[in-house]
Order: sequence, then C-alpha cells, then structure tokens
Amino acid sequence: MARLGRKNSPGSEQIRTVKSFGRVTSGPIYAKLSSPSFHTAAMDGFAVNASITFGAAPDTALGFVIGESTWPVNTGRPIPAGTNAVIMIEHVNFVNDETFEIEKALVPWENVRRVGEDFVQSEMILPSRRIISAYDIGALLCGGVTKIGVVRKPRVLLIPTGSELFSAKQLENQPPDFAQSIEFNTHILAELVAQAGGVPVRADIVPDDYALIRKAVKSGVESGNDIVVVNAGSSAGSEDYTASIIAELGEVLVHGVAMMPGKPTILGIVKGKPVIGTPGYPVSAVFSFEIFGLPVISWMLGIPEYNKPIISAFSARKVPSKLGREEFFRVKLGKVGGRTVAAPLPRGAGSITTLTRADGIIKIPLNSEGIEQGSMVEVTLLNQPQQIENTLVIIGSHDLTIDCLADELVKHGVYVSSSNVGSLSGLLALKNDTAHVATSHLLDEDTGIYNWAYIKKFIPDVPVGVFHGVMREQGFMVKTGNPKNILGFHDLTRNDVTFVNRQKGAGTRVLLDYYLNKIGIDASDIKGYEMEEYTHTSVAVSVLSGVADVGMGVLAAANALGLDFIPLATEQYDFIVPQKYLEDEKIIKLLEIIGSQSFRTRVASLGGYGVERSGERLLEPK
Amino acid sequence: MARLGRKNSPGSEQIRTVKSFGRVTSGPIYAKLSSPSFHTAAMDGFAVNASITFGAAPDTALGFVIGESTWPVNTGRPIPAGTNAVIMIEHVNFVNDETFEIEKALVPWENVRRVGEDFVQSEMILPSRRIISAYDIGALLCGGVTKIGVVRKPRVLLIPTGSELFSAKQLENQPPDFAQSIEFNTHILAELVAQAGGVPVRADIVPDDYALIRKAVKSGVESGNDIVVVNAGSSAGSEDYTASIIAELGEVLVHGVAMMPGKPTILGIVKGKPVIGTPGYPVSAVFSFEIFGLPVISWMLGIPEYNKPIISAFSARKVPSKLGREEFFRVKLGKVGGRTVAAPLPRGAGSITTLTRADGIIKIPLNSEGIEQGSMVEVTLLNQPQQIENTLVIIGSHDLTIDCLADELVKHGVYVSSSNVGSLSGLLALKNDTAHVATSHLLDEDTGIYNWAYIKKFIPDVPVGVFHGVMREQGFMVKTGNPKNILGFHDLTRNDVTFVNRQKGAGTRVLLDYYLNKIGIDASDIKGYEMEEYTHTSVAVSVLSGVADVGMGVLAAANALGLDFIPLATEQYDFIVPQKYLEDEKIIKLLEIIGSQSFRTRVASLGGYGVERSGERLLEPK
Repeated sequence: MARLGRKNSPGSEQIRTVKSFGRVTSGPIYAKLSSPSFHTAAMDGFAVNASITFGAAPDTALGFVIGESTWPVNTGRPIPAGTNAVIMIEHVNFVNDETFEIEKALVPWENVRRVGEDFVQSEMILPSRRIISAYDIGALLCGGVTKIGVVRKPRVLLIPTGSELFSAKQLENQPPDFAQSIEFNTHILAELVAQAGGVPVRADIVPDDYALIRKAVKSGVESGNDIVVVNAGSSAGSEDYTASIIAELGEVLVHGVAMMPGKPTILGIVKGKPVIGTPGYPVSAVFSFEIFGLPVISWMLGIPEYNKPIISAFSARKVPSKLGREEFFRVKLGKVGGRTVAAPLPRGAGSITTLTRADGIIKIPLNSEGIEQGSMVEVTLLNQPQQIENTLVIIGSHDLTIDCLADELVKHGVYVSSSNVGSLSGLLALKNDTAHVATSHLLDEDTGIYNWAYIKKFIPDVPVGVFHGVMREQGFMVKTGNPKNILGFHDLTRNDVTFVNRQKGAGTRVLLDYYLNKIGIDASDIKGYEMEEYTHTSVAVSVLSGVADVGMGVLAAANALGLDFIPLATEQYDFIVPQKYLEDEKIIKLLEIIGSQSFRTRVASLGGYGVERSGERLLEPK
Repeated sequence: MARLGRKNSPGSEQIRTVKSFGRVTSGPIYAKLSSPSFHTAAMDGFAVNASITFGAAPDTALGFVIGESTWPVNTGRPIPAGTNAVIMIEHVNFVNDETFEIEKALVPWENVRRVGEDFVQSEMILPSRRIISAYDIGALLCGGVTKIGVVRKPRVLLIPTGSELFSAKQLENQPPDFAQSIEFNTHILAELVAQAGGVPVRADIVPDDYALIRKAVKSGVESGNDIVVVNAGSSAGSEDYTASIIAELGEVLVHGVAMMPGKPTILGIVKGKPVIGTPGYPVSAVFSFEIFGLPVISWMLGIPEYNKPIISAFSARKVPSKLGREEFFRVKLGKVGGRTVAAPLPRGAGSITTLTRADGIIKIPLNSEGIEQGSMVEVTLLNQPQQIENTLVIIGSHDLTIDCLADELVKHGVYVSSSNVGSLSGLLALKNDTAHVATSHLLDEDTGIYNWAYIKKFIPDVPVGVFHGVMREQGFMVKTGNPKNILGFHDLTRNDVTFVNRQKGAGTRVLLDYYLNKIGIDASDIKGYEMEEYTHTSVAVSVLSGVADVGMGVLAAANALGLDFIPLATEQYDFIVPQKYLEDEKIIKLLEIIGSQSFRTRVASLGGYGVERSGERLLEPK
C-alpha cells in the first residue's frame, strides 16, 4: 500500500448521526452535552434531602409531608433543587394522602443519576477510525451530537469487458442470444464492495476493443473514483488488453500471482489510483478481488480488514495441489461423529455454484503438494459456525429428490451437505464416519434385493438402519424424438451411437452392468462406456448438448431437460443411517420428512417416482 | 413462538435479483438457463474435432489449416459446430499465417466447458430460507433469474414514550431544555432491527398519557406492522402504562424477567401481533430487545438467529451478582501474557457508553453469586476477534491524555482498553499480569521521586521500564468565580465547604494526603473526605453539579468543564511497562507516539501539561 500514499485517502465528509451506521469516524468525536444533563431520579418515588432522613429505622420511622420536604418524582425526571436523594416508592408507607413514613435512612445521592455520570460535555465519545455501531449512534445522540465527520466511502468503479457479454439489465427484458454470456461478475463484486464499506459503481459493458477499454479506464480514474477494477482480459490472450492499457496509462506493479483461482490478476496504478485487473472466470474474479481489492478499501477507510472466522476440520478426501502456487478450495462442512469434516467441491473456476454451495474455503500453501484424506485443515467460514452443527451430511448416490429434501429440511433449521459420489462411496463414507447418511441403490444380482448384500460385504462392522426412499424408473435418456431410434441395450453397440456412462460405484452403472451381463453384451463394444459423469443431470446434459446420444438415468432428469425417455427398470433408492445416529435430531427430522405426505406429493410430481413406502424401515433379509 | 402461529408470517414478495442482497428466499429458486448455455472455449486457442488430433506427438507433429479444420476461439466464446476440443494457443507452433502444427493429441471435450457443466435449466440454484449472498446474486443472474421471491421484511414499529423526551430531530435544530432528555433508544433499536433483516419504523414520541399510548399501540398493530415495541413505561411505576394497555387490548404473556439489565420487560400479543414493552434505561432497552425482540424477527424471516462469536477469557476482577437472576456485564478485552483478560465495565444501565466501550458481554447465570478474579468466563464478542490481539491494556491512574493516546494509536491499528483504578492498582495489575502498561504518579514523600519507591515496595519481582509521560498541574477545582473563596488546604476544613475525594490508591489522593500531613490537617476534619470518585472528570462533575464545592484534579479536567482552578503542585505522570513487553509491537508504537512532536502538541493544547521530556526512559535512582 506504500506506493499509494496519503493522497489516495478518500477524505472525509459530515453526515447526520442517525444515518451513520457502519461508517468510519474521520476523527475523535466529543460530547456536546453531559449525560445526564441534570440530576436525574433513578427510581420512581419521592425526592428528598438525604440529611432529613438520617435516623429513620424500623423502630423509629420518620414522617414527611408531600410537597413540603418531599416531592413525588418519576424515573428520568430532574430532582427538585435542594434535594439529593430519591426514596423508592416501594419503601414508602402512606399515612394519608399527604403524609408518608419511611423506616430507612438514605445516603446523599442515593437513587440519583448525577449530572455527567456517564460522560460530560467535552469528553471523547468515540475515537478516530471507529466503525459506527447501533450503540454508538445512541451514545452520539445522547451526547447531543447530530452530525459527525466520517471517512468518505471509497468509490470503486467496476468495468465489465467482453464482446460476448449480455447485461443483467437486458436480461430483465429478454433472454440472451446464443453465444452471449450473462455478465454477473461485477454484480458480485459490487456487493462485496458495498459490504466492505465502499460505493460500487458499475460501468456499462465494454466490448473487447483496446481503444474503448482504454477510454473507460482513463475516464474512470479521472472522474472521482478511488479504485478502478477491470473485469476479464487480465490474462495474456489476443483480446486481453488490461495489462497493456494500464502500462500505457500508468504503471503495472504486478501481473500474475501465484494462486489458483485468480492467477491472472493485475495490480497497477494510473494517476495515483489503484487499477486492478481481475480474471474473467467468476470464482477467479471473486478470489482475486477479495484478496487484492478489499484490503485497499479497508486501507482507504483506515480500518483493519474484516477477517472471516477460521475453524479446524478434517479433510474428507485427498486433495492434490500443484507446488509453487497457493490453491483455494471451496468446501462443504458438517459435523459427523464429533469431528468437523470438510468435503472439497469441484475446482472449476467457471462454476459460480461452487461458491454458493460452499460453507468455507481452505487454502493450500505454495510449498504443499496437497492434503491427505483425514488430515487437519484450516477452514475460513462463509456461514455462521452454528450452521455446521445443524448440517446433515449425505454422501452417496445422486437423486433429484435430495434437493427437495434439503429444501424441506432447511425449513426446520437443518442444512444438507450432499456429495454425489455414487452408492458404494456413500457406504464407505459411513465406514470412515464422514457422513450421517448414505444414499444407495445397489442391486444384488443373485437375490434381486437392494443394498443389504453390499452393506454386509463393504461395511460389516457398521450397524445401520435402512430406510426406504423412493422407487424410481431408470431408463435411456435420448434426444427429443429419439433421432437415433434407440430402443434397447443392443443399440448401444451400434457404430453411430455414442453412450455416456456413470462413474464406477454408481448404482446406475451397476444396473447397466447387470443388464449387459444378463444379455451378454461386451462393455468394450459400447462407444463412450468409459465416458463418466457423476449425476443423472450431467448425463442428461451430455445427451442434450450432443456430447452423447444416449445415457442411463431417472425419468425426472429426462423430464427436467425435456429429453425423451425409454423406461428400462424400476429400482429402489434407500437411505442408510448408522445405528449411532438414529437418535440424532437431524436424522429424526429427515425420516419424518421422507415419510410425510407433503414430501411424497412433491417427489411424485417430478415424475417417475413411486413413493408408497417412503420412510419405511427395511429389515435385514434372513 | 408457538403462540404467534402461522398467520404472523409477514408473507413474501417478488423483488429484483440485483436488489436481493441479504434477503431471505421464500421458496426454492430454479435455473431458467443452463450454465454455460453453449459449449464454451475454456482457453484461448483453436477449436478442433479431437479425433483429427489423434496421433500428434513430439516426433509426429500434425498440421492444420486455420479456417478449414480448426478455428480461432477465445475463452468464453462458443466452439463451432462439429468441434469438441480447444488446442491451447501456447501449444500451437505456427508454420505460416494459415497453418500450424501440434505435438500433442487432445481428448474429446478437452479445454471446453460443456453446456450445463455448472447447472442446467430447471435445477435448484437456491433452497428456501437462504440468506442471499453476493455470490448467490451472481449464481441467480447466471441462471437467468432476474426476479425472486423473498420473505417480506417484518415491519417493526418502535414507539418512544415519555413526557420528558426530546427528539433527535429537534436536536438537529436546538439543544434540549433543562429537564428534557434526548430520545435515542429507538434509534439504537432501529439499527438493530435493520441489521436483523426487519424494517424499523420509528413513531413520534408519545407523552406519558394512557389514552395516547393506548392509541399508538392500537393503531400500530392495526396498520401493517408485524411487531410493536413500546419503549419505557414497562415497569410498575405510576406512569408505567404499557402492561395495562397490552392487557386491555390483548394479552400480557410475560411481565418481568429474571435478568439484569432488562428486568421490566413485557411480552404480549395484541390482535395476533407481538407487542414488546422494553425498559427506559438504554442498556436495559438494548438487552431486552436483543434477547426478546430480535429472535421474533428471525423467526418471522424463517432463519436461525444470528449468534455473535463466543470466546473464553479470564476475569480481571471479582464480579459479584445476585442469586435468582441472570446478570449481563459489559467487559473490555485484551490479550496479556498469552491470556485473554476481561475487565468488567460499570453496571449502570443508564450509561450507554458502557455498551460503546465494551468489547464483549459476559452472562452470570441465575444460580451464581458471581465470578472470582482469575476465573474463566465465556464472552460474547461485540467486535472482531482480531481486535483483542491488537488491544493494549492500560490500567492505573486516570489522565485525559489517555484518550488522546488511544485516538492516536487506533490510527496504527492498536486499540486501547483503559481502566481507571488508580496508580497503585495499576502496579498490582502488572504483578497479576492483567495489563501491558500501568500509569502512575505516586510520590515518595521522603525523596520527592515519583513511582520507583512504590515499584520496589509493591512489585519488586516484576522487572519494569519506566517512561515519562507528562508533567501536570494538580490543583483545586472550584465553581466559576470561586464562590466559596477556597484558596488553600485550610479551607477544606471549613464547615460550609464540602470536598470530593479520589479513591484510595489514586496518586491524586496520595498527593492530597502528603500535603495534609505536611501542614498538619486531620482528614476527619474535612467534610466529604470519604466521598470517592475514580477520575478527574468525575471529581470535576461533582463540583460542577453542586455535589461538592471543591475537589482536587488536573487543570485539563477543570478546563474541560469550565471550572476555576487553583494550582497547588506540578507532578509527574509516567508509564510503567514490564520488561517482557518492551518488544511488543503495541508498546513500541505507544512509546513512539508518546515521544512524537504531534502528540506533545496535542497534549499541550489541553492546558496544564508539561511535555518536554515525554517518552524519555527514566532510570532507577541509585
């Protein structure tokens, strides 16, 4: 920050005290009035000069005439001149309407708030660089201060660049055309600026044109903004102009930082103003701005940067990372078996939902190759710590009903952390005690019974309860109209058909293999058998977008994306809960919801689900 | 909450996504568009069908013609139909302007973000009861969602009552008359409501009149407010009408709670709406509303109540409390010798500054008689945890320069927690390791040397450095014009003169006793010798307000309150720092400031201070 210097201070301004919440004082603030400003009755009762009460005792009660030596007074009112104490109304024995007795003497100033007891005129109420709280506003008004000097909020100009961008404003009237992307990065950054105490100013979208971006940056630094942020174009591609523009107009201090996401960050100065180039991927833009932009705002305001709380957690998985750069991972958190467990979300810097779904962030340092499963990590929290306590961790097979379930549970204060890793990995999570619930639909080919054989085989030492979730239709998802005319498993081996599979351990893949085996089809004859997706929805997307012609999944996923569906089988999708968690409040609530009529109705409306026995406990077959 | 029932829900409303920060979703929100909505280049380079790159290797480079089999593409743009991978520009070896070679094959979909990779149309982006974050706004816009359903903010009507009240609005034009008190409680509550997600509505001040308050409450519950709060009048005095009014219009559920401050809280229901009566003292009003009002707002919004972080700390002092009620104490916090130390602030519920000065709150439970010095307590934090690390704890003698010092230190990110307990108690705090610095002006009558004799006697085992603070004029503070004609110590024994003293262990009291002893005056001949105040300012207030005729203190305190001053002596006020803290960054900064010209100038301007040797280290006399 040293390079920026004092002239970059946004200066100060006078504002009304009642509008000052969250602002930062630019200097000390002194009381204009004392509090209280007069000797004030601290109780309801009678004001008196304490000296005339001396001698009052249970056996020598003293009497007083109201209006002669004592005067009625209520809390908050001044005591009359000559008095210096208040007899509490509760201690008064009325003789008649005009006279009362007391059995206890008062000391001078008893039950009186003296002038200036809290503070006196000219005393400092607040120091410099104070972030004004609700209480502070009260204290200032109490001290007669109706206007205060505060640091002017730094204005942060956010310039979105990119010829492909479509503004959120346009979006309110019409959908984007093909090849247009909605510009939302500067909307995120704007909220971050506002929360940090700055004033965000969102510029219009500037196309990928050197002269136009240059003009926007130049007029940005010249027109009263304290910080200028150029979003996208901070890398080194043919249309990445930010670095050259900053270099032309001022000075590039840093181009590229050893962190992921956020590597192509640019820090520069133009006419004494900080200019920051942030990457175009939303997660990269966020990390880049939070790490390099927000501290500048705090520095301009003269306050310490806000630090989110940090907790320790066990990593639910191995997380590899490259040496030589800091890497940030978004994680889901939950408390399982007394330990807080962090499950990393996907890395994709283009996936904004990895931030919305995250409960926290872990940082892997420069000199580390990653973290091992079960090792302790520091997690910067994005949510309230108490939320972790109330989070139910579900790991296993993906189904669209999990979203409905999460949406119902949150109404009861229970949050859901779900990881879609397949049925088998779900069972193993129970073994490692990193989940409260596994979701599974693993068919035993010999008996036709779901799940129990796998429980016996893979987690024999974990006593569990099995609860029926839903029956669901599995089938082939194909493009509308079924253009490749796919009707059965044999069509998967056709030369003109590309299949998209689920990952190993997924129940849907087990089901596929069961049929291929039964029919006698060799998996190596299926083009795309090795192409793996982790959810029904991703398989549907692969089909919809032409990556594949056909995939296997549930009807609800096909319905959601408007695909055609060729039913193959009805299967059983269950919830498996370790015995030791059966009394957990979150599990009790979960099972209650699964069995409820409203949940069944909601799930049935997705299509392809049987909910007759949802929530029923399934006993181990003999 | 059960009594309130579903009909008290404030309902929902549709708002623009870009204006939704901090709001609460009223139902799940689904994507209208997939993200990405087309197969998108994830890198700058050339789009290609991966199959034609098969076989490319370092010794078998493959060549491509731009515009025939490969097409230039930038990050974020769609890849042309028929392509399914992007060759990174960094991997391209140009042969000429139209042709390039590559030495590495691509797999299908390499460097491509496929349609729906983050989420697909119809997928749930956010569940119900989600507090919208900056990231969420990005995700919603990304999903094409420009309007969302949120829970309507509960409207909270705040009715200030009291005939003595003077509004903050009036205060902007003129000061209050004698006997008027500034109404600031509802301004504090309004900010608390806003922060909790409600809409505060401040009513006009209602005088203490049953019919008028009744009318305000009745129209309040009938006119679209979700909660009504009546401030003051919640006790049982002659003008405390709230309980009777609620009983007349509806039902009183609770009147009086076993907590301090906040005991006379009223919880009632009128026409199905919660009506809360809060006490008139500001600290009581705050605790009452935070404990009983804020949870109702959270409940109406359908979100968990926000919990401030809690830490453990050692109590710097014994804190007695009455059995049978919860008692809340405001505390200052600091980290001394590796331990977090909590120092309780005064209890007075009328002192709003006990909240503004507090770093945290401790709760003493119903069944406890208080806490011992040095025992562990749970502290609910009002500030950021990091602030505790950066807090310098100063205990000892009071001087007005401490405020200046605190104001200078905060500009360097150092906060000051100061307790005015007198010089001797300051030294003892160093012994107990509950302070970084003691402030002291203890005169050794035999040698005329300050502080060292007391250090040797009371803390011989604590190696310390002594740094000179200021020389300051001590004298008598008397009313303007000196109406009692007080000229010297002998006047203190006059029958018509009331003195106000400092507490035992205060350097000013030691100085007084030194002179009384020297002159041969018996302390018992001085009326008010036993009346103790803890600061120069409080002594000055006692004189100003007529509680006493004369007190001893520094010129700056007399100046601040416009009192006359009769100089008696110049004394030495020093900073005593344990050797082990001399390398502490906060101490280094403190000593730097004390020695700086700007600090000296600022202190000198207060009057009565000598700053020639400020900051100088004083060596132990031989």
